[in-house]
Amino acid sequence: MRATVIHAARDIRFEEVPDPVLKLPTDAVVKVVAACVCGSDLWPYRGITETKAPHPIGHELVGIVEEVGSEVRTLRPGQFVIAPFTCSDGTCRNCLNGVQTSCLGGAWWGGQDAAGIAMNGGQSEWVRVPVADGTLVATPELPDDALVPSLLTLSDVMGTGHHAALAGGVTKGRSVVVVGDGAVGLCAVLAASRLGAERIIAMSRHADRQALARDFGATDIVTERGEQGATVVRDLLGGQGADSVLECVGTVESMQQALDTVRPGGRVGYVGVPNGGAELNLRKMFYNNIAVAGGVAPARAYLEELLVDVLSGDLDPGRVFDLELPLAEVAQAYAAMDERRSIKTLLRP
Amino acid sequence: MRATVIHAARDIRFEEVPDPVLKLPTDAVVKVVAACVCGSDLWPYRGITETKAPHPIGHELVGIVEEVGSEVRTLRPGQFVIAPFTCSDGTCRNCLNGVQTSCLGGAWWGGQDAAGIAMNGGQSEWVRVPVADGTLVATPELPDDALVPSLLTLSDVMGTGHHAALAGGVTKGRSVVVVGDGAVGLCAVLAASRLGAERIIAMSRHADRQALARDFGATDIVTERGEQGATVVRDLLGGQGADSVLECVGTVESMQQALDTVRPGGRVGYVGVPNGGAELNLRKMFYNNIAVAGGVAPARAYLEELLVDVLSGDLDPGRVFDLELPLAEVAQAYAAMDERRSIKTLLRP
Repeated sequence: MRATVIHAARDIRFEEVPDPVLKLPTDAVVKVVAACVCGSDLWPYRGITETKAPHPIGHELVGIVEEVGSEVRTLRPGQFVIAPFTCSDGTCRNCLNGVQTSCLGGAWWGGQDAAGIAMNGGQSEWVRVPVADGTLVATPELPDDALVPSLLTLSDVMGTGHHAALAGGVTKGRSVVVVGDGAVGLCAVLAASRLGAERIIAMSRHADRQALARDFGATDIVTERGEQGATVVRDLLGGQGADSVLECVGTVESMQQALDTVRPGGRVGYVGVPNGGAELNLRKMFYNNIAVAGGVAPARAYLEELLVDVLSGDLDPGRVFDLELPLAEVAQAYAAMDERRSIKTLLRP
Repeated sequence: MRATVIHAARDIRFEEVPDPVLKLPTDAVVKVVAACVCGSDLWPYRGITETKAPHPIGHELVGIVEEVGSEVRTLRPGQFVIAPFTCSDGTCRNCLNGVQTSCLGGAWWGGQDAAGIAMNGGQSEWVRVPVADGTLVATPELPDDALVPSLLTLSDVMGTGHHAALAGGVTKGRSVVVVGDGAVGLCAVLAASRLGAERIIAMSRHADRQALARDFGATDIVTERGEQGATVVRDLLGGQGADSVLECVGTVESMQQALDTVRPGGRVGYVGVPNGGAELNLRKMFYNNIAVAGGVAPARAYLEELLVDVLSGDLDPGRVFDLELPLAEVAQAYAAMDERRSIKTLLRP
């Protein structure tokens, strides 16, 4: 089959690799229906994180089960499945605690599974899925093709936005600021709206993203950044910071923006993968009683709940995809997202 | 009157200062019945934080209302009152959010009130209390003298331990590690026990503090520190970290201990005043979904609730006081706590 391999910064190749086959009785093999490029894929693409050796890349996919191992109980060939961005067995203590990203028997796409067997990346024609029963969520029936983009967001960005909102303590009536207008930030707006936030302020400088944020439930847009941005937020909120700030970028500046924009006693829910000087000013947090919670989202934990709303048509996060390309043109997808010509690019094999 | 003034590191004097009088119609004047030395008072005492100019010190006190201003509605002379370690008006948005330490009209003992008028320190014979209605909590009747130590802990350490437990998400059945065996750490053990924690592991190296921790509800004592301490905790908890870790010290090492000892998806509740390199490793938090919450405790927020339990005899945090001295011997109280001869020293004028 062919799959996406990153060789170095800005060197994305769609190339021939061995076909995935069942290696363990708990494996499944899935034919990919749709995959996509994540904002976090841009870190190695841009050379901000180093690519020491070529490796398969991509971690968001939906597809059709092709084959299952002898110990797989809950899946059968022909089912449409959503694969979260980490694989998890669903039975270890961390999975039972709802932290499937810390699964003791889990695996990350493009790495190695718990048995040491190489994993495929998600931007592939087929993938071997370890601990398939724990990892994959099947839809009740084959979904309409129009639902594929929204279902694909449950792999990562919608679950990640939801995680930010939960970690940030968003509940009915809260005021929320979302830092970051990428696909995750936009999904965080949608998640906050779904959870009943009263005021949702999206910090965004791009007209297309502002428009989508409003469609997703943002009540206000703030284009300023830094201390000026925090001041505008306080003006909008009657002189105080927000109850919850959702940090969806992962830079030193974005976390500082979050800490500057939350009210005393408020919560920062963060899901941006920390890049750069990944430290927090504890003293600022201390004197203002600011809680910081979140991290790498256990998308698997939220998948069933969010799936119900996608299938019913109540939740339409698939609108974050504003470009669709054949998987073979994956390098163009990276370039389009890198150059901000696309919020998020969907890839079809 | 006489009051405690810190002039420089290790230079604590009990000296003549002007008698406090009503300055604003919302003030009260309180005759101090008992005060004490806080672990955080030891930072300037030890010279770890600089004393740039002599200033009154102390922020924990109970006493008898002597006089009230014309706008004070809820207090009358002769009442026994507990003063939290910050003054707060009870009406601003931060107070209404339960973050009285960020009160917009509040004040800190030894500093200035919102009108710019100098504050007394708590280790005094009398104090002027600004925004008295919001700040002071009166007992229903004059309490028995034996209750005074426990009532005094509601000024700070018991409320602070309770804040750590709430911020750390302690609820019925959770496993809890408490880092720090000072008065706050011991009160955090007591708070966790009161909230129904199933397993409470106190990290302590001192026999007297270990014994009190056990009396307060600790199920296990761990004497090791650092990575070894974290390993012993995991062994006690069947191979995993704790659901909640309560950080009650404020050093880089104690926060690292907390982060090393919590399970993925767990919560660190921290109340140790950050000293030294007060930064957090966000990347470690991120990949393990560790929440960090807490800060300077809004003791006022918890005062009524904890007072009920103290008056009923269900809660006896006053046992953290293992030394009592006349207020005039306040310098010896600092020395005794500095040299760890006393967990916490009570002072009576």
